[in-house]
Amino acid sequence: MKYSIALVFAILLGSTSQAQDSAMFRKIANQILLQGKCYEDLRILCKQVGNRLSGTPAASRAISWGERTLREAGADKVWLQLVEVPVWIRGKENLSVREGNTGNWLSLPMLSLGNTVGTGGKILEASIIMVQDFEEFSRLGTKDVAGKIVFFNHRFPQQLVNTFEGYGQAGSYRWNSPNLASAKGAAGVIIRSISTGEDDEPHTGSLRYADSIRPIPAVAIGNRSADLLEKWCLKNPVTARLQSNCRMAGTKTSFNVVGEIEGEQLPNQIVVVGGHLDSWDVGEGAHDDGAGCVQSIEVLRTFKALKLRPKRTLRVVLFMNEENGLKGGMAYADSAQAHHEEHILALESDAGGFAPRGISLGMSDAQRRYLQSYKSLFLPYGVYDFEGKNGGADIWPLQKAGVPVAELIPDPQRYFDYHHTAKDVFEAVNHRELKMGAVAMTQFIYLITQYGL
Amino acid sequence: MKYSIALVFAILLGSTSQAQDSAMFRKIANQILLQGKCYEDLRILCKQVGNRLSGTPAASRAISWGERTLREAGADKVWLQLVEVPVWIRGKENLSVREGNTGNWLSLPMLSLGNTVGTGGKILEASIIMVQDFEEFSRLGTKDVAGKIVFFNHRFPQQLVNTFEGYGQAGSYRWNSPNLASAKGAAGVIIRSISTGEDDEPHTGSLRYADSIRPIPAVAIGNRSADLLEKWCLKNPVTARLQSNCRMAGTKTSFNVVGEIEGEQLPNQIVVVGGHLDSWDVGEGAHDDGAGCVQSIEVLRTFKALKLRPKRTLRVVLFMNEENGLKGGMAYADSAQAHHEEHILALESDAGGFAPRGISLGMSDAQRRYLQSYKSLFLPYGVYDFEGKNGGADIWPLQKAGVPVAELIPDPQRYFDYHHTAKDVFEAVNHRELKMGAVAMTQFIYLITQYGL
Repeated sequence: MKYSIALVFAILLGSTSQAQDSAMFRKIANQILLQGKCYEDLRILCKQVGNRLSGTPAASRAISWGERTLREAGADKVWLQLVEVPVWIRGKENLSVREGNTGNWLSLPMLSLGNTVGTGGKILEASIIMVQDFEEFSRLGTKDVAGKIVFFNHRFPQQLVNTFEGYGQAGSYRWNSPNLASAKGAAGVIIRSISTGEDDEPHTGSLRYADSIRPIPAVAIGNRSADLLEKWCLKNPVTARLQSNCRMAGTKTSFNVVGEIEGEQLPNQIVVVGGHLDSWDVGEGAHDDGAGCVQSIEVLRTFKALKLRPKRTLRVVLFMNEENGLKGGMAYADSAQAHHEEHILALESDAGGFAPRGISLGMSDAQRRYLQSYKSLFLPYGVYDFEGKNGGADIWPLQKAGVPVAELIPDPQRYFDYHHTAKDVFEAVNHRELKMGAVAMTQFIYLITQYGL
Repeated sequence: MKYSIALVFAILLGSTSQAQDSAMFRKIANQILLQGKCYEDLRILCKQVGNRLSGTPAASRAISWGERTLREAGADKVWLQLVEVPVWIRGKENLSVREGNTGNWLSLPMLSLGNTVGTGGKILEASIIMVQDFEEFSRLGTKDVAGKIVFFNHRFPQQLVNTFEGYGQAGSYRWNSPNLASAKGAAGVIIRSISTGEDDEPHTGSLRYADSIRPIPAVAIGNRSADLLEKWCLKNPVTARLQSNCRMAGTKTSFNVVGEIEGEQLPNQIVVVGGHLDSWDVGEGAHDDGAGCVQSIEVLRTFKALKLRPKRTLRVVLFMNEENGLKGGMAYADSAQAHHEEHILALESDAGGFAPRGISLGMSDAQRRYLQSYKSLFLPYGVYDFEGKNGGADIWPLQKAGVPVAELIPDPQRYFDYHHTAKDVFEAVNHRELKMGAVAMTQFIYLITQYGL
């Protein structure tokens, strides 16, 4: 009898608390959808700061913007955290191709891959050898490849529902092609962009030279140019002329921007929410990852606006150098360890400002099951998928150190149309989608700051 | 013992059939995502036909496009179904406003509401009286309103997650404001557009004059103009000048376009999938409802491409005159009744070419429960919401006649930024989102044609 009363009591308490959480979820949504400022913040970041590759003056302006915006959002404390970042300079670049030996040279829209070497301003002229994939490339010998420019014509696998799975697969052509090609003596690499786009937009993004390899220039062309080049290569010899000035230029001092509201009851337990402040040097870094930055700031602003003092410390981190070094994420994790900080969880938004569908949970099975028990609270906001197991890149060093991580999962259909391109601008972000993402993040962070993990 | 064997057998059979359906779902997705033509079809409809209000030459071209495209997609039979449509002509129009009695006239971007009367080309000059909502308007007397232009400044309720709920609420300001204002002697109506947009885009769309009411002109202005007008009205008297030539111009003969693949086993059982072919006279009718038309054609094309002979008849209907009369939907239902056709289900796509989240089921509880039992098959495609109970507008006459109906539920965040505006153009539709909608529709129609309902 006693047991049943306790049980009934527990169930009543449980449902009361569920009802309270549900009411708080609604308050959070109302606040952000009606009063949220993340869309205006994004406009300022995109239009007044613009793109902001690590080490550039624009990245410095972005840091000032982050400090100021976090203060205005109501952070108790805002500070900068030192990050030594690599500096890569694109410079002028162009690529043209010629079908047969007498045709006209056709200039193709292109972008050198990030961190690539250039041609030192000279014209690199070489014949193109096309392969569809690594498998086909593996069958070529050094004598087939030496001195040539290898065109990796691998297509983004459009049949996958989750384009991020496709990115995992196609992305290796960006990371590894130059290494494989160089090992067989190639003079350079052209890749079909890692792109879902039905257009001719070239997509940049990092490559990473293996230590043992002679670095060779690597560039990306858009899907339509790749279609044309494929057609030509199937018929005739094709020659390319590449001229570029890309180079690494040492390192510079930069910063992560950190702001927090101190926890009222457990200030030493830290809950992180963040995105990355740097972007590639084209477009405006709107989806990647201005969106994640302004959403993270919106989380803090919403706590302030609702006079919701978090039990645990809520910390916003705008990471520097995700795109071409991940130095900000590493510096943050190092600092956390050096200061013996206790991190309860870190949540990242770095998959675009699209309507949210889920939150990925990178943590123990028991922790996942506990958080999944809140699923029904999120469903009315279109957030239903808690099956993923990833965090974001910037919080991967924390994850490696044992911190539970999570990542906002927006609808993935459009991301790789914009990713690392000149099209990733403010106008490509929808105000309601961006805000709905901030709503889900704030709701999730609310649960963690109040109930722990 | 016998019973358990039967049960085991049934479970095995069930899971075999589930595995087969799951494999078919994957085949459908691969086919559409890799080989689908709906995006190219939409480009042609938007760019070569353009917007296509009922009764216009463009609507006739759209009918030819529909016939041709259905034939090319592989329909066994394509025919036109007579529909008498109302003709509304916009003509030239402009609106300007002046703050105080001596200020400059400021021209505002505007659109007359569809089916509205105009000023007969004359300038209607009148002072503006602003109300926030119907409640405030109800407190005004005839002497406050007579001879004035009433500005209904009601805002789209942005806090709702499902913007279609907001449309239901805000849309009554488009339908009813002119009737209420006219009843108190107003000279005209300006409404804040039924818009979620963070811009100044005016949204047109139908009004419906009550029979007993003297029709007065009604126009919509964008959110930014409405903000300005609100600011002015709070401070000073504001005068408006409206000049327009809108008019109804009788009726014209038009058509629904119908194409089908005859059912192999139960040809008399008809499963309908459709969208509406007409659009408003601005933009290109891309999301509304070019998307639904090309997705419906893609369903049929996919059956053909996969050599999937449907057990029941699969019929695609491109309805005419959804926007300002619904005559196509009514003509179709009348014809179905006159010919004693047996309709198993009708599915409409008319909520935009965005990534799908669900399928709404307007049918008996038992039928809903049966279709909801397939939920897990749809989940890998991001389609999880089977809780809605609506069909689309065009299939409402069928629903009224007892036919089970369903509607594709795309993500609703962006629709009312584009709805009935000059911004509803091909470029506003994403190729993968559009195709994902066609995938969900084809998967759903596959279940119905094969297993009935």
